[in-house]
Amino acid sequence: MVAKKTKGKQSILFEHPPYIIGAGAVAGKKEGDGPLGKYFDWVEEDPMFGGETWEDAEGRMQKKAAQLAIEKAGLKEGDIRYLLAGDLLDQLIATSFGIMSLEIPLFGVYGACSTMGESLSLGAVLVEGGYAEHIVALTSSHNAGAERQFRFPLAYGNQKPLSATWTVTGSGALVVSNEPGKKSMDPQFIIKGITTGKIVDYGIKDSMNMGSCMAPAACDVIYQNLQDFNLKPEDYDKIITGDLGLVGKEILLDMLSAKGYDISQQYMDCGIEIYDIQEQDVHSGGSGCGCSAITLAGYILETMRQGTWKKILFVPTGALLSKVSYNEGKTVPGIAHGIIIERV
Amino acid sequence: MVAKKTKGKQSILFEHPPYIIGAGAVAGKKEGDGPLGKYFDWVEEDPMFGGETWEDAEGRMQKKAAQLAIEKAGLKEGDIRYLLAGDLLDQLIATSFGIMSLEIPLFGVYGACSTMGESLSLGAVLVEGGYAEHIVALTSSHNAGAERQFRFPLAYGNQKPLSATWTVTGSGALVVSNEPGKKSMDPQFIIKGITTGKIVDYGIKDSMNMGSCMAPAACDVIYQNLQDFNLKPEDYDKIITGDLGLVGKEILLDMLSAKGYDISQQYMDCGIEIYDIQEQDVHSGGSGCGCSAITLAGYILETMRQGTWKKILFVPTGALLSKVSYNEGKTVPGIAHGIIIERV
Repeated sequence: MVAKKTKGKQSILFEHPPYIIGAGAVAGKKEGDGPLGKYFDWVEEDPMFGGETWEDAEGRMQKKAAQLAIEKAGLKEGDIRYLLAGDLLDQLIATSFGIMSLEIPLFGVYGACSTMGESLSLGAVLVEGGYAEHIVALTSSHNAGAERQFRFPLAYGNQKPLSATWTVTGSGALVVSNEPGKKSMDPQFIIKGITTGKIVDYGIKDSMNMGSCMAPAACDVIYQNLQDFNLKPEDYDKIITGDLGLVGKEILLDMLSAKGYDISQQYMDCGIEIYDIQEQDVHSGGSGCGCSAITLAGYILETMRQGTWKKILFVPTGALLSKVSYNEGKTVPGIAHGIIIERV
Repeated sequence: MVAKKTKGKQSILFEHPPYIIGAGAVAGKKEGDGPLGKYFDWVEEDPMFGGETWEDAEGRMQKKAAQLAIEKAGLKEGDIRYLLAGDLLDQLIATSFGIMSLEIPLFGVYGACSTMGESLSLGAVLVEGGYAEHIVALTSSHNAGAERQFRFPLAYGNQKPLSATWTVTGSGALVVSNEPGKKSMDPQFIIKGITTGKIVDYGIKDSMNMGSCMAPAACDVIYQNLQDFNLKPEDYDKIITGDLGLVGKEILLDMLSAKGYDISQQYMDCGIEIYDIQEQDVHSGGSGCGCSAITLAGYILETMRQGTWKKILFVPTGALLSKVSYNEGKTVPGIAHGIIIERV
């Protein structure tokens, strides 16, 4: 039996698009000092966020971001039917320990730095399908926790190539609802549709060059989105990837160009925007689940609110590796998920 | 606006219940030697599954289980709209590397050993909501990979207390569809409803006693399921937890009894059934994402097919820890998700 809400090969078109009615962006000091600093709801000077460990700090950020988003939506924690949340840490411990006290039924999700795309996609499905009034999509990353886990503890002072990115310390949360917001965020934002990515592996093994690992997955999902919805790049005001950085950006533009799509006029990457790349010495740009999450919850929605952009394709990008897979000589495959967000 | 498919505080009742039309259970040798051995589709003698590492082996099991389930449903890989998959390894690498070549859009999920409950829940929502014709819910665990990651490599010959469980080597996959199966599995199975769990933490810190860590979460979700659907334990032929083992079982029965529900007549735990606990020297029983997944895909569905049970509550249980959280002195919180499966 044909599933009536599917669109093309990998997409969903929502008949009754769910609304984004609240957003919370919690950032670390370096992110607050960057060009998007003024768009974040909360910039924390203490890298430990009052916690005992980096992992604890990241969990506290998640809780804070969720609470801010819920409050800005004019709701209470008890109004939220589901949390869809995840992070980069082994077994999602920032999520488990961070959001436990909220006592909201949880779907834990993992898509590396594409996680916000996954949680927004599934959250929109739950809301539009009549399974929830309000959900929170939530994710985070912490520079020190991620570096210790995936590469070397910061204290080692390890050097990195210019293709490496800087993991963002931050957590972004969005409240998705089946009705327009009552309180903040006027005008309204809707999730018009989604395109869900497959794993794409071009055989790259360098975890210090994740832009190259993820660019093919971003290309795949953007191409499929344009095909499935029969759109041209100029139908979007912006096409925004998560954290390809300077190196991944060039590869993505080249790959899409070879497939007949020139997105250079619409293109933006959260990892490139979030820092002053030269001044803040972040090599290829920012990365991490928090990078696209706080850029969306802060800068992107605010720019749409001001009317600069009306319709965007938001494409968080993830590099699927663990230190075990890396040490066993495996490649770093990529995945990306596309979300169509419109101001109405 | 009230979400019309919600039921009670934490549940969903499906108007048009999706069908389980295919199941694949791939098991390791020890599981094949156990009392449920004859119910598994594939028992592999080689603990490496022809791969190079334990992690590679687990990925190969996932792919095999998915392919078996799809084939038994009379479908092809291209018919599957989404994979909802996850495992216990850091950053879900068994999933990423195992299923990549299937080229199916992926939602990566993590709920520790409750993962099959989460992937079935979200998969049922996608299918019933009209977002997919067919999905595959998939998960796995591997004894050697899990021991090395969470405790000590097997080669250390480390001793364990009697409260410890034995991580199952196995992968289970289910095809969920919006129409009855054409090929196998006559009679049909439907997913009638779901109850999604919250994180529950009773402050237990012992990763060698995960039954105790998870029992409160199982209690919480079973209690909520009975409340939300206004059911009594005897309305189910079986109430089946994932991997509480002998220690967790006693705690669960006591806790539910204190809340006014005696489920002792209906109760079963996959971790207790999957091994001959005395003969196979597995202490408290089996555990791991694969434990409940292959018991469901093999033994439980076959027993329902034979007509012994008509309606069950399937409750995979997860212990939310990483070696980092454990070494930082954190507790081991639990989560569990309930799925109502009925033979029609």
